[in-house]
Amino acid sequence: MEDYHKPDQQTVQALRNIANLDCCASTFSGQAAQSAPALYSMWVETGFLKESELLNMCQVDSSLEGHLIPRQQFVDVTTGYLGQGLGVACGIAYTGKYFDKASYRVYCLLGDGEMSEGSVWEAMSFASYYQLDNLVAIMDINRLSQSDSAPLQHHAEKYQRRCEAFGWHAIIVDGHSVEELCKALSQPRHQPTAILAKTVKGKGIPAAEDKMGWHSKSLSKDMAEMVMKDLQSRIMSTSKHLYPPTPVEDAPPVSLRNIRMASAPAYKPGEKVISTRKAYGMAITKLGRYNERVVALDGDTNNLTYSEIFKNEHPNRFVECYVAQQNMVSVAMGCAARERNVVFASTLASFFTRAYDQLRMAAVLDSSINLCGSHCGLSTGEEGPSLMGLEDMAMFRALPRTTIFYPSDGVSTEKAVELAASTRGVCYIRTSRQDSAVIYNSNEDFHVGQAKVVYQNKEDQVTVVAAGVTLHEALAAAEHLKKERIHVRVIDPFTIKPLDVKTITDHTRATRGRILTVEDHYYEGGLGEAVCSAVVNETGFNLHRLAVSHVPHSGKPQELLKIYGIDRDAIAQAVRKMLSTSTNAK
Amino acid sequence: MEDYHKPDQQTVQALRNIANLDCCASTFSGQAAQSAPALYSMWVETGFLKESELLNMCQVDSSLEGHLIPRQQFVDVTTGYLGQGLGVACGIAYTGKYFDKASYRVYCLLGDGEMSEGSVWEAMSFASYYQLDNLVAIMDINRLSQSDSAPLQHHAEKYQRRCEAFGWHAIIVDGHSVEELCKALSQPRHQPTAILAKTVKGKGIPAAEDKMGWHSKSLSKDMAEMVMKDLQSRIMSTSKHLYPPTPVEDAPPVSLRNIRMASAPAYKPGEKVISTRKAYGMAITKLGRYNERVVALDGDTNNLTYSEIFKNEHPNRFVECYVAQQNMVSVAMGCAARERNVVFASTLASFFTRAYDQLRMAAVLDSSINLCGSHCGLSTGEEGPSLMGLEDMAMFRALPRTTIFYPSDGVSTEKAVELAASTRGVCYIRTSRQDSAVIYNSNEDFHVGQAKVVYQNKEDQVTVVAAGVTLHEALAAAEHLKKERIHVRVIDPFTIKPLDVKTITDHTRATRGRILTVEDHYYEGGLGEAVCSAVVNETGFNLHRLAVSHVPHSGKPQELLKIYGIDRDAIAQAVRKMLSTSTNAK
Repeated sequence: MEDYHKPDQQTVQALRNIANLDCCASTFSGQAAQSAPALYSMWVETGFLKESELLNMCQVDSSLEGHLIPRQQFVDVTTGYLGQGLGVACGIAYTGKYFDKASYRVYCLLGDGEMSEGSVWEAMSFASYYQLDNLVAIMDINRLSQSDSAPLQHHAEKYQRRCEAFGWHAIIVDGHSVEELCKALSQPRHQPTAILAKTVKGKGIPAAEDKMGWHSKSLSKDMAEMVMKDLQSRIMSTSKHLYPPTPVEDAPPVSLRNIRMASAPAYKPGEKVISTRKAYGMAITKLGRYNERVVALDGDTNNLTYSEIFKNEHPNRFVECYVAQQNMVSVAMGCAARERNVVFASTLASFFTRAYDQLRMAAVLDSSINLCGSHCGLSTGEEGPSLMGLEDMAMFRALPRTTIFYPSDGVSTEKAVELAASTRGVCYIRTSRQDSAVIYNSNEDFHVGQAKVVYQNKEDQVTVVAAGVTLHEALAAAEHLKKERIHVRVIDPFTIKPLDVKTITDHTRATRGRILTVEDHYYEGGLGEAVCSAVVNETGFNLHRLAVSHVPHSGKPQELLKIYGIDRDAIAQAVRKMLSTSTNAK
Repeated sequence: MEDYHKPDQQTVQALRNIANLDCCASTFSGQAAQSAPALYSMWVETGFLKESELLNMCQVDSSLEGHLIPRQQFVDVTTGYLGQGLGVACGIAYTGKYFDKASYRVYCLLGDGEMSEGSVWEAMSFASYYQLDNLVAIMDINRLSQSDSAPLQHHAEKYQRRCEAFGWHAIIVDGHSVEELCKALSQPRHQPTAILAKTVKGKGIPAAEDKMGWHSKSLSKDMAEMVMKDLQSRIMSTSKHLYPPTPVEDAPPVSLRNIRMASAPAYKPGEKVISTRKAYGMAITKLGRYNERVVALDGDTNNLTYSEIFKNEHPNRFVECYVAQQNMVSVAMGCAARERNVVFASTLASFFTRAYDQLRMAAVLDSSINLCGSHCGLSTGEEGPSLMGLEDMAMFRALPRTTIFYPSDGVSTEKAVELAASTRGVCYIRTSRQDSAVIYNSNEDFHVGQAKVVYQNKEDQVTVVAAGVTLHEALAAAEHLKKERIHVRVIDPFTIKPLDVKTITDHTRATRGRILTVEDHYYEGGLGEAVCSAVVNETGFNLHRLAVSHVPHSGKPQELLKIYGIDRDAIAQAVRKMLSTSTNAK
């Protein structure tokens, strides 16, 4: 019989107090996140926390929040949203089995309410596909959810059939029996295991037992006193002593410091063209060459995002997540947890909208993951609007603790990858489908929040801020306008968040306050609005913006840039108009 | 034996040409959306489309896009993104069975690649829970996906087990056999049916058959010619004649015009307090009282969003979607398709991040659905940051064809609901948890894009733009500042998108260009940035912004408003500072 990580004696006692007395079933259920008060109680039992602090839970000056947060000790991944935990657990278990090759096991507590989330079934698929026999999901089947009963009620056998069909070993137990739980936990495992713990919410509290309307609710004072008395009377002292083995720490030590490229980019300006998506694939591959803990994930798009280059060179560090973007982001968070790996996960930019909630939680968690969205904006072309990422910058900008890289050539893409690897929080790298010229010298120095002036002249009349495909269009427009003796300055922001406000403002002042932003994105929430926010109180500035204003058609990318008014002609025309308007205004 | 909707003779012939010759298996697979060229070919066969137009597919001036779009005739719901079709089909089937009580059936074509999306399993659960026996899913199991084989390869029996565990009748067929398909389609049905069509991608084309690397790829000219010759030689004329019955149209006629409230709101200023979330629940219930086609959906939060009021009064028009927000939005789209229903779907504001991709597709589709996100911003309070919607305005603003209502009292909430019912596109109503005073008279007239000046004086020195909880804080600050003889004007934008730029700009001019925005949202992409974009080129404006800058703690809402600097004190302080700065500047 396989050993399992037996908790220490104090914890066992605390668990007994909680589980045997049936008083806390409700705190484990509905959403697993509500295990927070039960966990806090165990911290008290083990002497880690003062009992009096429990009463401050959810108060603004207490560290005991309504849901677990990573600021708390022993908490690596935050909870509070439904159906995300199992995907993160998959990432931790994958790391344990395949990267760490260690014996640790991963346990995930789920509520039956959240089993309706598709993300749970993405994770179920992933775990069985990769034979994560080090993963145990404990599913609290208590029948009652937030506003109604869960759709499968107490039919644990229906959950069992679903788990088994998804390739798991599934065991039904009485969730109120510590003995049954221990037995289930100690079964030998050759595949991921689901323990379907059938429980009664509020068991032992007659007014609340198996009744709706008590989710996340407090008992009245009278009821609480009655229940407390009953609980006290049922606490049994035990003479049994358990001697659990000390957990084995056989995971290798890992340092994620100094994750750097061993050499400068090999691109030279004017020498060749390369798409930023391909440069991304080459860059993560290069980074992975000297850093064993760089891992890459993709969602069945590795031949589009070019993470296939990494897959081919480092097959053991590539995780195919299939068409399940939510789970891919959760797995990325799991792989990155406890600073075990530097993770790069890629798919089409538009597909990250599928995982916005997971991305939001990564920000709440302060998870350090790197994401690359390819085929941004109109560059998807013929495939049509459903595959165009035109809201991705807005989506990532609205999350705290995020950095948005929008590289425009091979050199800056490689630098973005290198910087992302050592930047805390969520890093998003936005790449394009089409080839473009190399702009920067290989020794160019890049920093987060530092823009580059890529085209300038003393007589510049307008500052153009553009990135990716529109930067190349801006450069072409600048060349063209030069023939008309109109001079424009072109700035590449490199990161959209944080934005280099100083460089943009300084140069705009040098061009008499005239500034034009051009972006392959909808008008709202992207580069243009970021610049608006930055310069709104500048005196004498005149900001003009070009962006995509409607849901686009299918078409060739260059045609689409023209139709939606973000190509070189549109830029030149906007510059001319700005100059004529300001002349007229004089 | 149950009848099925037999296609007409021409269509059958076209289907035979396509399916029997095995040439188009690949167009049906990987992602079902790629059925577009097959559908276009059938349009040619039936005489609806000229054959020459096929060659313009994906060109910018052709209506034949890479993925189906609703601009095309016979297309109600757009495709192109993976795993969303079945949820929409559920909404159409639910409408057919329960609202229309009609005999029509709904067929949905899926690829095996997209079966990895959790949203598919949310829809599978929904369909069996509601016994949608009028729904058939045809799953093309061709083994090959975009960059790799699908995880379950050709194991149709594994798909079958999963479908059965999720409560479906599942039949495995040879997907290349029209006979087997017809037989499966004509089986009697008492539950939703999955037809698992095992196919070989590129069958009949030796170079491509069952091989990776051909997804969405064109054949070379030589290959194409060879294949065409082979196909031509295999076209059989048939002497069989089919006499399909004419489809029965037994759905009732529906008009969604003049969906209006029968009376003015019953709230009076100063009389009572009510949360906007409760006002929402009451408003949809009232709207539903006189309009049989108003339906409401919720995702296991009806006692939080107050859609439970609707559920209690109109139980037959309330659809519980459980904890599956992606599917809820897809079902909403399905219910709204073909202008059959006016749909209101609600959950917590933060939970809509889970369905951002579905919302994005609703915008691409030009679907008219109404969504209500409650517990916006810090008002979630003690539950902590994972349940606070602080990026929802950014998320919805970045989608074309959306309207964002942000009502601040009972009257404006009721008006928002009424306006949303008749506003095309995606309407989002942002509601708060806490009770607040009634501001407006019941006869106040509201329009999309029309702001309200709720507090003013001739001597006003600063214009404050705020909504929801911050509007009430702004009003309190205004009262307080009045005692210091500082006068501020307070504007309620009512809709954040479109924003009433004229009212905001005019009044800001009247307060010497001083404008302060206050929002219960992160700094990026919300009210403040919308105002920035609107006023950036105004001369002499001085804009100051208050918003949430960090991931918040748990705490009482009022405490959080103070800590994150968006309460009455922070507003008063910002106003004082703006005045002192501008005085100093003079």
